[in-house]
Amino acid sequence: MLVLSSPSGAGKTTLSRRLLATDPDITMSVSVTTRPPRPGEIDGKDYRFISTEEFGLMRNRGELLEWAKVFDNYYGTPLGPVEQLLSSGRDVLFDIDWQGTQQISEKMGADLVRVFVLPPSASALEQRLTKRAQDPPDVVAGRMAKASDEISHWAEYDYVLVNEDLERSDEAISSILRAERLKRTRRFGLSDFVRHLQSGL
Amino acid sequence: MLVLSSPSGAGKTTLSRRLLATDPDITMSVSVTTRPPRPGEIDGKDYRFISTEEFGLMRNRGELLEWAKVFDNYYGTPLGPVEQLLSSGRDVLFDIDWQGTQQISEKMGADLVRVFVLPPSASALEQRLTKRAQDPPDVVAGRMAKASDEISHWAEYDYVLVNEDLERSDEAISSILRAERLKRTRRFGLSDFVRHLQSGL
Repeated sequence: MLVLSSPSGAGKTTLSRRLLATDPDITMSVSVTTRPPRPGEIDGKDYRFISTEEFGLMRNRGELLEWAKVFDNYYGTPLGPVEQLLSSGRDVLFDIDWQGTQQISEKMGADLVRVFVLPPSASALEQRLTKRAQDPPDVVAGRMAKASDEISHWAEYDYVLVNEDLERSDEAISSILRAERLKRTRRFGLSDFVRHLQSGL
Repeated sequence: MLVLSSPSGAGKTTLSRRLLATDPDITMSVSVTTRPPRPGEIDGKDYRFISTEEFGLMRNRGELLEWAKVFDNYYGTPLGPVEQLLSSGRDVLFDIDWQGTQQISEKMGADLVRVFVLPPSASALEQRLTKRAQDPPDVVAGRMAKASDEISHWAEYDYVLVNEDLERSDEAISSILRAERLKRTRRFGLSDFVRHLQSGL
């Protein structure tokens, strides 16, 4: 379970997409949200867009691994698909904020790898946030405040990278994933391999 | 501090050389040994070849980070050069066995990243050990026994990789190193960067 968090505008979504395109063993966890789709967003791919009522039901039934309210909208991670992916041996990528990360950390502990992506500078972040033409100015201002809040939680993550160059950040995340997969504590079945190896010596 | 351990013949030395050739930020820790040089080995590069008396003096003066006796010969890691490299901000690579790894772990704790390299099969290991024409048969037999002993300590390492393909193992070690460098706990100076970033928002 790989969590990517960052302030909006630091490049997290692009990095997620690139990772999913290059790594065949990881699948994105699709969040549910009560906010309306933005132009170009596809239901079931970018988010599952649901009503506030449906969200409340899922939450009350314990079907959400984490959830949060951001700007009057609810966001959450449905538990079922994640459990299915993990039990079939796949890795799962989460594009969630610090609140969600804290909630999943409490539930999943050491199984989780948490990566925080920082923008290279305040001006770079501001530029990227302003470029999203579809958002009204007050939403941009709100995002800047939220960015500062999000950044204040960087020290709750296992890995931190500064996204100066997309290519290099890409490689960094792939390296983290590759390294984590080589951790002894994740290498189920290796005991049998070593036993077999030693019986042949 | 990156430790690479493996039974003799699993490809550790080749992997070390490749890592040193491709990663400009890591330097090999050169061990001292009382065994005579093998053909082609260079004093001060492969090992520092010293007398048993000199070894005893270094050990008694506390100048060795770890030491071990293997087949009547002594091996050790001099502390001075390692401290110099670390304080100049460089990473240090150690090509040592499980005994040395245990000793350095006790002294260095979380600063150490321990990687164990396993051979893909018993027959592959046997083949590689027999190919070293310069060693007499009883030394090869002794190496096989030592290999089995070394392998039994695989679970004391942070990462474990099966060296099936040199290229892929190479990439695996580079990924581990890159990922470890991105760990929050190693990113000194990042607090200042984040403070500066937030002051601009």
